[in-house]
Amino acid sequence: MKRLTLCLAVLTLAYLASAQNPKAYPPRINEDNSVTINCKAPDAQLVQVVGELSSGQATKDMVRDSSGIWTYTTAPLKSEMYYYLLKVDGVSVADPLNSAGILDGGSRYSYVIVPGGVGDLYIPQQVPHGSVHKVWYTAKELGYDRRMSIYTPPGYEQNKKKYPVLYLLHGAGGNEESWLTFGRTAQIMDNLIAQGRIVPMIVVMTSGATKSQAAPGDCPGDGLYKPVSGSSYDSSYEVQFQDVLDYVESSYRVIKKKSGRAIAGLSMGGEQAFQTALNYPETFDYVGIFSGVPRVRKINGNELKVEIYENTLEKLYKEFDNGLKLYYIAVGVDDSLYGNSKWLRETLDAKGLPYIYNESTGGHSWRNWRLYLTDFSQKLFK
Amino acid sequence: MKRLTLCLAVLTLAYLASAQNPKAYPPRINEDNSVTINCKAPDAQLVQVVGELSSGQATKDMVRDSSGIWTYTTAPLKSEMYYYLLKVDGVSVADPLNSAGILDGGSRYSYVIVPGGVGDLYIPQQVPHGSVHKVWYTAKELGYDRRMSIYTPPGYEQNKKKYPVLYLLHGAGGNEESWLTFGRTAQIMDNLIAQGRIVPMIVVMTSGATKSQAAPGDCPGDGLYKPVSGSSYDSSYEVQFQDVLDYVESSYRVIKKKSGRAIAGLSMGGEQAFQTALNYPETFDYVGIFSGVPRVRKINGNELKVEIYENTLEKLYKEFDNGLKLYYIAVGVDDSLYGNSKWLRETLDAKGLPYIYNESTGGHSWRNWRLYLTDFSQKLFK
Repeated sequence: MKRLTLCLAVLTLAYLASAQNPKAYPPRINEDNSVTINCKAPDAQLVQVVGELSSGQATKDMVRDSSGIWTYTTAPLKSEMYYYLLKVDGVSVADPLNSAGILDGGSRYSYVIVPGGVGDLYIPQQVPHGSVHKVWYTAKELGYDRRMSIYTPPGYEQNKKKYPVLYLLHGAGGNEESWLTFGRTAQIMDNLIAQGRIVPMIVVMTSGATKSQAAPGDCPGDGLYKPVSGSSYDSSYEVQFQDVLDYVESSYRVIKKKSGRAIAGLSMGGEQAFQTALNYPETFDYVGIFSGVPRVRKINGNELKVEIYENTLEKLYKEFDNGLKLYYIAVGVDDSLYGNSKWLRETLDAKGLPYIYNESTGGHSWRNWRLYLTDFSQKLFK
Repeated sequence: MKRLTLCLAVLTLAYLASAQNPKAYPPRINEDNSVTINCKAPDAQLVQVVGELSSGQATKDMVRDSSGIWTYTTAPLKSEMYYYLLKVDGVSVADPLNSAGILDGGSRYSYVIVPGGVGDLYIPQQVPHGSVHKVWYTAKELGYDRRMSIYTPPGYEQNKKKYPVLYLLHGAGGNEESWLTFGRTAQIMDNLIAQGRIVPMIVVMTSGATKSQAAPGDCPGDGLYKPVSGSSYDSSYEVQFQDVLDYVESSYRVIKKKSGRAIAGLSMGGEQAFQTALNYPETFDYVGIFSGVPRVRKINGNELKVEIYENTLEKLYKEFDNGLKLYYIAVGVDDSLYGNSKWLRETLDAKGLPYIYNESTGGHSWRNWRLYLTDFSQKLFK
């Protein structure tokens, strides 16, 4: 009997303690698709939410309860991926309760994905999963080893088949992880393959930041290995692309033919895809330019005299002469780089050269790039 | 002249602005191997450092300058990996200026590595790098797909050789990423291979948390895919190990012989390695138990009647009868699980069974586990 009394006393104490110590929770997606964010910060003066969870990306104050837990609930949200930060007394930090985080240009973001629509493609579902490889190749032209990310479709490791390859390039400030983290490439590929909407393919995600060896995160401090994110971008990406191709084609079971290769990129990567396709004219049957910067590189009004950037239009016409299965241009109507895509369309139209044009709403954002990848990948290798 | 004056004025303003807006920097390792941490937090009342950078792991207050940048400099530190958090007005967060971070059991830590000694093994150096694969295997016994991490040594993708395999298991609260993040396995392997100190090997890092499909981080919210970190651990790890073995041996070019297989684990993973070796008696020539929990599983004083845990001692003697190349036990003198290693040594001693014993200073920590991996891996496959 004494033991029972003791038990009850302990249980009561535990109950009281839990009532007095309400818990802060990781982000919750509510039934109406609003999202609730918590932060336990009894000693903070002000905790705020910044980013895509606050409408119009404004900074929103969270509300403190008597126990020191701050809460913010969004309006009901469309199915999408949303990233955000917390500001604790003015310091921007990733949500300490959210394990889902992305490192971008040295800053870490938190994110949530609201399911029930397009977001379902970005969530790992109960379907067969491909692998993600972080590999190193020797960029002979640059003089150092560099990392890239490679997605292999489900079954690649077990069968003997050869696969087509999509080379997928990020924008300025990004790296070889951007298409995996912000871009959700592995989840999109897994889910589209499971739905029978795409041909299983290998996706090679290189780093366009040619001054860096690898994305930040693996090496702190001042090691020999210095990732330099957001460094200057020059024609060296296109020059070293042969090293990427050689590595992939000697290391993976791939279809080593034009019909088995696609290249696409976003923003700066859209220019790199444009230029790489021009300079490797027998290499790709599929080219995708997402919110890209296709252009004739000029200095003082004259075409830049850098081999890789010379004779842009001649190379472009030759690319089409060689025969292409798909030239794909996508851009949002509010994109500040809309003009570049327009220039490219007009240039192709003037010669009657065929392409597919996907004009979306919105602007220069990962929301659009994920949609473009979803659309573009369904048109490949069929 | 007007233009020059304007230029000078602009430059002067820029200079004044920069003088008035001193910059906060990512962690710096100073010449004397002290480490300086910055945090820009003009509106915070108190910013602190917690973790291995503050001696004795106490919480240390950072010092605010007039511009709102808080600074903390450690004493000179030995070459090692150190993890830490900041506390901004009481909220523990990863250092927003440090891109080097680790997710552990849902919490994110920042880290620095001080070079010049053992830390050099943990830093990516200018040597050939192996690949890291995140793959999924079907755990038939559990009824779902699960992820694991696989390190392949430099050259694996290009040559046709078969490699030996080390199965490397983490402790409670960890997952298939722990040996890569806290354990620095990829860097240790790359560097030891480059120094000619180990036989190039594949390292398979599974998740011992059999209730979860994958480490947190890839999926936020309430997807179908629910990583459950730190969930209950039971004999299902050992039961599903056959699925791991089948996946690896059907997907990688490995030596499918006892002499080409090693298994090691830390803490809970040390018990899993112990039990797995017992229950797969023809499988491993090398067994490593780092700060492990080897034991006879009992309930009410009697050996537990679960097939995988039954007849522990008989299985152990049989394992040695079958012939082993290395049985390796490592533990720190201050480890709270020291007794388990002692029990195992005494059990083996009583039968005159040979093993190598590595008793280190310190306790139950990644510092020791990295050293044990470094030592153990040099004794394999030779």
